[in-house]
Amino acid sequence: MKVTDFSESRYAELEGIPLENVEIQDCLLSDKMEINRSKSIPHQLSECERTGRIKNFKIAAGLAEGEVSEHLAADSDVYKILEGISYDLANTDKNKLQREMEKILDLLEKCQEGNGYINTSYQTGGGYLTQSYTTAEDESDRWKDLEHGHELYCGGHLIQAAIAHHRATGKRKFLRIAQRWADLVTEKFGPTARHGTGGHPEIEMALVELYRETEKEDYLNTAKSLLNIRGGKSSGLDGSKYLQDHKPIREQKELTGHAVRQLYLLSGITDIFAETGDDELWEVLSSQWKDLTDKKMAVTGGAGSRYNGEAFGEPYEITNRTGYYETCAGIASFMWNWRMLQVTGEAKYADVMERTLYNTILSGMSRNGREYFYTNPLEHDGGKDLAEQHRGSKRRTTEHFDGTACCPPNLARLLASLPGYVYGKGEKSLYVHHYVNSELNHRIGEKEVTITQGTRYPWKGDIKLKIDPERNLEFSLMLRIPNWAKNTEVRINGDTLNLEPRPGKYLEIHRKWESGDEVNLEFPMHIRKIVANPKVSGNTGCIGLMRGPIVYCIEEVDYPDSELYTVTLPKDAELTTEFDEKVLEDVIIIKGEGKSVPYTQNLYKDLENLNSRRIKSIDFTAVPYFVWANREPGAMRVWIPVTESVLR
Amino acid sequence: MKVTDFSESRYAELEGIPLENVEIQDCLLSDKMEINRSKSIPHQLSECERTGRIKNFKIAAGLAEGEVSEHLAADSDVYKILEGISYDLANTDKNKLQREMEKILDLLEKCQEGNGYINTSYQTGGGYLTQSYTTAEDESDRWKDLEHGHELYCGGHLIQAAIAHHRATGKRKFLRIAQRWADLVTEKFGPTARHGTGGHPEIEMALVELYRETEKEDYLNTAKSLLNIRGGKSSGLDGSKYLQDHKPIREQKELTGHAVRQLYLLSGITDIFAETGDDELWEVLSSQWKDLTDKKMAVTGGAGSRYNGEAFGEPYEITNRTGYYETCAGIASFMWNWRMLQVTGEAKYADVMERTLYNTILSGMSRNGREYFYTNPLEHDGGKDLAEQHRGSKRRTTEHFDGTACCPPNLARLLASLPGYVYGKGEKSLYVHHYVNSELNHRIGEKEVTITQGTRYPWKGDIKLKIDPERNLEFSLMLRIPNWAKNTEVRINGDTLNLEPRPGKYLEIHRKWESGDEVNLEFPMHIRKIVANPKVSGNTGCIGLMRGPIVYCIEEVDYPDSELYTVTLPKDAELTTEFDEKVLEDVIIIKGEGKSVPYTQNLYKDLENLNSRRIKSIDFTAVPYFVWANREPGAMRVWIPVTESVLR
Repeated sequence: MKVTDFSESRYAELEGIPLENVEIQDCLLSDKMEINRSKSIPHQLSECERTGRIKNFKIAAGLAEGEVSEHLAADSDVYKILEGISYDLANTDKNKLQREMEKILDLLEKCQEGNGYINTSYQTGGGYLTQSYTTAEDESDRWKDLEHGHELYCGGHLIQAAIAHHRATGKRKFLRIAQRWADLVTEKFGPTARHGTGGHPEIEMALVELYRETEKEDYLNTAKSLLNIRGGKSSGLDGSKYLQDHKPIREQKELTGHAVRQLYLLSGITDIFAETGDDELWEVLSSQWKDLTDKKMAVTGGAGSRYNGEAFGEPYEITNRTGYYETCAGIASFMWNWRMLQVTGEAKYADVMERTLYNTILSGMSRNGREYFYTNPLEHDGGKDLAEQHRGSKRRTTEHFDGTACCPPNLARLLASLPGYVYGKGEKSLYVHHYVNSELNHRIGEKEVTITQGTRYPWKGDIKLKIDPERNLEFSLMLRIPNWAKNTEVRINGDTLNLEPRPGKYLEIHRKWESGDEVNLEFPMHIRKIVANPKVSGNTGCIGLMRGPIVYCIEEVDYPDSELYTVTLPKDAELTTEFDEKVLEDVIIIKGEGKSVPYTQNLYKDLENLNSRRIKSIDFTAVPYFVWANREPGAMRVWIPVTESVLR
Repeated sequence: MKVTDFSESRYAELEGIPLENVEIQDCLLSDKMEINRSKSIPHQLSECERTGRIKNFKIAAGLAEGEVSEHLAADSDVYKILEGISYDLANTDKNKLQREMEKILDLLEKCQEGNGYINTSYQTGGGYLTQSYTTAEDESDRWKDLEHGHELYCGGHLIQAAIAHHRATGKRKFLRIAQRWADLVTEKFGPTARHGTGGHPEIEMALVELYRETEKEDYLNTAKSLLNIRGGKSSGLDGSKYLQDHKPIREQKELTGHAVRQLYLLSGITDIFAETGDDELWEVLSSQWKDLTDKKMAVTGGAGSRYNGEAFGEPYEITNRTGYYETCAGIASFMWNWRMLQVTGEAKYADVMERTLYNTILSGMSRNGREYFYTNPLEHDGGKDLAEQHRGSKRRTTEHFDGTACCPPNLARLLASLPGYVYGKGEKSLYVHHYVNSELNHRIGEKEVTITQGTRYPWKGDIKLKIDPERNLEFSLMLRIPNWAKNTEVRINGDTLNLEPRPGKYLEIHRKWESGDEVNLEFPMHIRKIVANPKVSGNTGCIGLMRGPIVYCIEEVDYPDSELYTVTLPKDAELTTEFDEKVLEDVIIIKGEGKSVPYTQNLYKDLENLNSRRIKSIDFTAVPYFVWANREPGAMRVWIPVTESVLR
């Protein structure tokens, strides 16, 4: 099954490759996928049981009594898990999870009303409705609170899950439910009805994908209506920047408001652009992408720096300690950049996907797969957890399902879908978007070709691609050269390629491939010291550490003898790497000599009064950002003061 | 009249000195006071007319028809202006303003109900009540919304204004209104009623002062009740940290929530401590003061760094660009520290007053006295004003009275009251708390003494104190040595004093003073480079500049050829001062040679890829923080990157 299917899109450069054709093995991502499959998804399902999310459907179907649990958009959590299970079906045997899924689908069928409506809160008048409505037993409350109601949002997730299920199983049962829902949405929000749009985008990309799956153009047109009505008088929303409703969509050139909403919306816009080639929409997409990558993206790929409102801030408001960077926003950015890659074939979008995946997304889940971060700040002072909010937690927790639980099941579906993002198909070309130890089985024209990618990426920079066409086969192999990879070496069957690959571009190797051909890539995996634009004023005098796509951080637990805020790194420090297989996971950590610069309790001091206290050499250790807070919760910093910047 | 009268307080070290005994002349503060008197207060009164704040009282008195304007706590704005006018009466001739005041007092008399109640919103069922109540014509809504209703808050300002009026004029008219109100509050909230407490502290300090003014102990007891019920089940509030209601007051050891509320509350606690000597309250006061000065105070004295909620943040969350630092919070801190000074006689509290006054308070008002800052951040990127909030404005505005207008009238009363804060009285001692060009006429025992303080402080460090007792008079002259003043030279009648004054302490000079005695102080007025504790992580590699009590900043308008974010200062830069009488006000600015470090648009760059672009020498200019945004609005920074910290 394809994660998103651009194969028939008129304005897309690339197509996806069905994820069942790709197997990811023996690497960081396959480890995460296995934990997701064996631990996270079962755990999340049981959390949905525990917190009433499954029972909600029973109540709505008239099979159980009680009150629908009040978690906002709880239905969507279940849908996302179903989507994740479906993706996993492509690469695993049918199993207990599939049986559970089928039971839930039976429930959904029973819930759905004759006109296609399905939403446990609105169907029972319970759930989060009790917060804003007094009675809601009848239909009259439906489609009224477009701003907060999340009906269209939940329905979007329903559609995405159903498409995944259909592609994985070939069965139409779930898809039928989704189509009946989508038909209702078309009736209410399509071009002739124009009732408004949803306060939390999601339905737009779902409807376009449903159009691709069913070829029913109504769905595309409804997606367009939902988009075009936004920012006008009839949107049904509040006209706020927060909901991306402050002006017509074609005039929205800057990221604004709630980050997940903004990035899901951009994903939907990209999908509509892929089908329509609407130039005005491209202007929106390209300028907002520039706004993200020039002014609003954390070094981890994190999006939405502002704690208050889980929102994008002003340009260069890329905060560290109070940064939000919701896990869902990272996933949304990954999804949007994938779509931008499909419509352009430009490697810069895959670079953002990679940065985001290996840092702000992977950090969202604990090693054991049962605890999650909702926020992914760039610094934690180690103080009381969530004492007064406005800073992220220093420990991942399991309690998300007791409230809003968007991030865990979003991780579940994203991790399960990873094989679909590795390769891509152009016209007579095969794209390697991401370097992952994997095997691809694919057809080009009438011919089978197998590509075996052998690598310990992202820890090592050497990639061995074995190309095995059924018969000799002429095509372009498009290899992404990451934007950080200078002086990449490329060999074909042992011969060094006589051209310099350009970082941030695809390297095209066009030839008639023969069985046994081997391409070797050697990316320079040295440790890079990173500096931020000075307008990110909180990062003055600090460096970040990266190696390949991995962003590092320093963590309190590695500094038993020095308070973390005394830890500095000399600008020219020589740093080495170590494989750490015990303390953390099978990850590469960075070692070196740092300097601890002691200080007094004073809040402010005259520079001239600072006596040159002894600056102490210390063992410097940095670990990948995504593994932080997996040992002892404590202070953490991504941006590390350079010793020379600590004024004495 | 005394600003706050500790003369009968049992547990206070010091007494205030009536402000009519002090004349401030020909200096920065007298300029500000004159602008306040001649421009700001008349302007604010006319704004109160324009926006219906005066008419509200007419409506409540049945003298006009219409709807009460909806600005939250609008009555208190009028009361604060009346307080300011009253202070001014002590030092100016009766004038038009006084006549306007008397007219308003007539109105207040007519408004006040038989039981003492007065609040235009609740009396008419209009105003901001329309936001939360549907009908409110009757009394039943009163005293119900203690959290947001601001009845006690407005009443607190009523009392403070009335006391000021009584002290200035000797007339009891206004005081009678306040007492009838206070009697009602005692009936409803006193020790026998214990109905709850107010969501916005203010009434506590007002009631204690009313007790001092009238010697009616009920008022003190009511203040204690309002304090002691806080944080318990019967508080009537929401149990939040935001309202300082999360635990019993005696257990509240850290600053929390809304900054102005917290600091007004601490002022009230200090007043109650001064009368009761309650040790548990002292524990609260001293630990919260330590929390402020060790962990939560901006270098400008600004309090409440968190934009969202105008609130205190976590320890060391002292943000620059997104800092809030409400003008009212600065004033509240000034008022609290004054009270702490009274109960201890310790100079460290006067140091905080001075820092706060000359920086985050004076910055609140424009040179012309008609525009105000509500927020006083430490940095502005110069971008669109208030585009998405979460950062302060880059220009002072007049529009405050169209909405919540707490800051302008708070400045009005504070500036008018300044003479009351300069000197103090101990047991057989006279305190010079602040250095201001002024004359004091005072009695010690039965004898008159005049002290003439000749100085251009805060711009120059030499102070000439002429002591003129009626007859020879033995007492201790207590001179505050500011905490930044090392190696202060002291001469008495030309002879250098043979002892080293300790910064941050009072220097006691005990002698029999004779007419014509002269004390000369010479404070070291050199430019100081300041560094922040490294836990204030956004200030790494940056210095602040101070000279005396004045904090400086750099402003876009002084750098026509270099973007402000390229401006850096070498660590060892030699800096000079210049009197600037034209461009700004009569202030000292700092000049020197800075370095402009150009950069590219990239958000992140590899350190190794930074070519050593030409670092350009530029004219460096820094201006007092409080005058920023008086020329062209633009970017501004208090914390300036040191050239050596900008990584290349």
